[in-house]
Amino acid sequence: MSNSIKLAILGLGTVGTGVINLINDNLDELKRRSGRDIIITEVGTRRQRDDIDSNIMQNSDLMAIAASDNVDIVIEVIGGTTLAKDLIMHAIKNGKHVVTANKALLAEHGNEIFAFAEAHNVHVAYEAAVAGGIPIIKVMREALAANKIDWLAGIINGTGNFIMTEMRDKGRPFADVLSEAQELGYAEADPTFDVEGIDAAHKLALLASIAFGIPLQFDKVYCEGITGITLQDVNYAEELGYRIKHLGFAVRRDGQGNADDAGVELRVHPTLIPQDALLANVNGVKNAVLVNSHPLGQTLYCGDGAGAGATASAVMADVMDLVRVLGSKDNDEQSNSVQNNHGHHVPHLAFIPEQLSDTPILRAEQMITGYYLRVHAYDSPGVLADITRILSDAGINIDAILQKPAHKVGQVPVIILTLPVVESQMNLAIEKIEKLDTITDKVVRIRLDELA
Amino acid sequence: MSNSIKLAILGLGTVGTGVINLINDNLDELKRRSGRDIIITEVGTRRQRDDIDSNIMQNSDLMAIAASDNVDIVIEVIGGTTLAKDLIMHAIKNGKHVVTANKALLAEHGNEIFAFAEAHNVHVAYEAAVAGGIPIIKVMREALAANKIDWLAGIINGTGNFIMTEMRDKGRPFADVLSEAQELGYAEADPTFDVEGIDAAHKLALLASIAFGIPLQFDKVYCEGITGITLQDVNYAEELGYRIKHLGFAVRRDGQGNADDAGVELRVHPTLIPQDALLANVNGVKNAVLVNSHPLGQTLYCGDGAGAGATASAVMADVMDLVRVLGSKDNDEQSNSVQNNHGHHVPHLAFIPEQLSDTPILRAEQMITGYYLRVHAYDSPGVLADITRILSDAGINIDAILQKPAHKVGQVPVIILTLPVVESQMNLAIEKIEKLDTITDKVVRIRLDELA
Repeated sequence: MSNSIKLAILGLGTVGTGVINLINDNLDELKRRSGRDIIITEVGTRRQRDDIDSNIMQNSDLMAIAASDNVDIVIEVIGGTTLAKDLIMHAIKNGKHVVTANKALLAEHGNEIFAFAEAHNVHVAYEAAVAGGIPIIKVMREALAANKIDWLAGIINGTGNFIMTEMRDKGRPFADVLSEAQELGYAEADPTFDVEGIDAAHKLALLASIAFGIPLQFDKVYCEGITGITLQDVNYAEELGYRIKHLGFAVRRDGQGNADDAGVELRVHPTLIPQDALLANVNGVKNAVLVNSHPLGQTLYCGDGAGAGATASAVMADVMDLVRVLGSKDNDEQSNSVQNNHGHHVPHLAFIPEQLSDTPILRAEQMITGYYLRVHAYDSPGVLADITRILSDAGINIDAILQKPAHKVGQVPVIILTLPVVESQMNLAIEKIEKLDTITDKVVRIRLDELA
Repeated sequence: MSNSIKLAILGLGTVGTGVINLINDNLDELKRRSGRDIIITEVGTRRQRDDIDSNIMQNSDLMAIAASDNVDIVIEVIGGTTLAKDLIMHAIKNGKHVVTANKALLAEHGNEIFAFAEAHNVHVAYEAAVAGGIPIIKVMREALAANKIDWLAGIINGTGNFIMTEMRDKGRPFADVLSEAQELGYAEADPTFDVEGIDAAHKLALLASIAFGIPLQFDKVYCEGITGITLQDVNYAEELGYRIKHLGFAVRRDGQGNADDAGVELRVHPTLIPQDALLANVNGVKNAVLVNSHPLGQTLYCGDGAGAGATASAVMADVMDLVRVLGSKDNDEQSNSVQNNHGHHVPHLAFIPEQLSDTPILRAEQMITGYYLRVHAYDSPGVLADITRILSDAGINIDAILQKPAHKVGQVPVIILTLPVVESQMNLAIEKIEKLDTITDKVVRIRLDELA
């Protein structure tokens, strides 16, 4: 078939193998939708594999594949931020479109990679990099292209969501569930990226850029993991009608008249959200992203955020987009070349490069959220009055209070939910509360969002 | 700006006005994303409106607008299936791309309209026709392009979902909620299209075609509305852990070895689904579509299914797609013309026209679903044994039974949930049950789906 599209896959781990399996399983669907033959011509793998079709050339020289004349689209699924970057830059320089699932690489070096791709008139597609099989990149870049996006909130780390779900459903402590997640293969041997929120921060940086048209700024994402979440807080939250989820937020703030406070909040942290919100009912390893935009309002996208099938689906959706851009089936072989096609019509970061804005990323102290506070105090008269007066003096409105019976002799936990407040104000108030003679421990604080 | 894109809007009702408002509100976002100026040059309206910008030409001759040299893209939002069709065909003949929200027109005449558009190398975009602001057309045509879609289930009529939600939440009877929906403007004065499922059937026909690559076959959609749903059944369903939603289903069946039973089920009907499914928790006028595909698995898309903002968002997403296809900002004016662009790369029905398949649409008797049965019997010994024997003889597996205390003297309602069964078998069994001397009323049946 002269008009076939030739793919190279760099890396034959779970995802690379998933892509091969998808093409084997669904070749008929792919052809019926694209009118083109889609073939894998080369795969990059350190050692020869004998379970790969003999028509596919196996090569341990990945740089050679990235520049091969026998390849139209390079799929990078080796991961990491060093060799993967070199391979992608080399592929771009050689006029190849690139498809990647590499969120860490793009979050950290995406500005450079996208600019290089634009200079070479090729596209680097990355649907698989965020929320796996959920087409959130396509949705935000294309389907919401006429909207002004106000904020988004996402469950974008499946391991973290699995842990939070198990803690709530089964009353199991964090460490216990983490061990199981590692046994099940959901969490890596070193779970830092998942449980400290770094993986979610990588994805949030990408989502925020395409939401607001700002450059990638992973280093400015405020990042808090779930290692400090206790069963006690999970249960108090439920009692008050909320559920704790680990969420990434990107929020546009107008500064409420103060230009210094106008900007974008980029934050990843455990959050109390209303139990009856759909997002609160996205369980296990599922991911979901809630986008609030004008004039559309709230839309929610939910599905598997990881795994061979979901990731391969996203990788191949990108390939199908490129195939459709590479010309119709009636065009001749030439249409595959960069010179003869109109290029990908959707900007890498949703906005055309010269229109990316320098909207500042707000500092943690400027962020505005509601709060869940757990305060431990000696059960003496006046302690609640002291706490509420400090909050009131700081201009912090209390939404709910729950005072539980003492579980240590003479000590009572007091749970307080507040309306949204600027973090710097909350810091000051907590400092004052912790100085009270009646307070026995550090105040536990978890952010709260009504998703309204 | 020489590279501006010129839009015409035919019809200035809720949606047409919503599109004008969106462009006014978000012009900066549109320009930053597309690099083009997007302007409305002409609007078609019966009587002159003085709230429209004076740069926009108002014209009551809609056919003239559809052929105007001053228009690149025609937005049809007058509705109906007669004049709207003539206008769209005329626009196509004159080389205009068309954007429409008209589900009834496309469900009934889409095959003809799309073929005409393909012959004229223009695109008819219709994101707004199904589930309003939820980008389900783009998602299924593009994001799931590498998947084999097994089935989909959708809440695709907001009025119906509002009624079912109110009945369950507030224990209000059907007629009561319908009146309120009409007062709120959710339901038309003649609510037939909504409550009888016809509107949902229009949308399902479109979704099924792009899911499976089959021509539009609205006339073959099995269609059942919500007018027969009673509070009694809503409550029994909840008691058993299910919720009744009005859903559209498109399901691919392999016939389980019998080629005559292989094909596609297209059906719209009230359905019991598990309470803890996300779809069961999509409330009010919201829409949602759940798609099960290989290898991605289940993904869910949720948002507003109607209203000016949601519909305008979808209409303008289509416009943005076309703008991006109509050439980059560096191209000259010529790139807007049909002759000089590569055309829209995504086939109207997701699959290239010559690859649409003639997979048969199954008859109602061939459909396979679980059932909720409510049987009223005299409270005599052996009645339950009689009923369960009839079901067992018909090869129907019972999943749950609930026998309620008699609410009429001597009569007891028996609720039975069954595993999936071919409808013809269920018909025979119910016929036999209704012939029993101990049975006092017609058997009430509602379909059931575990969404597994």
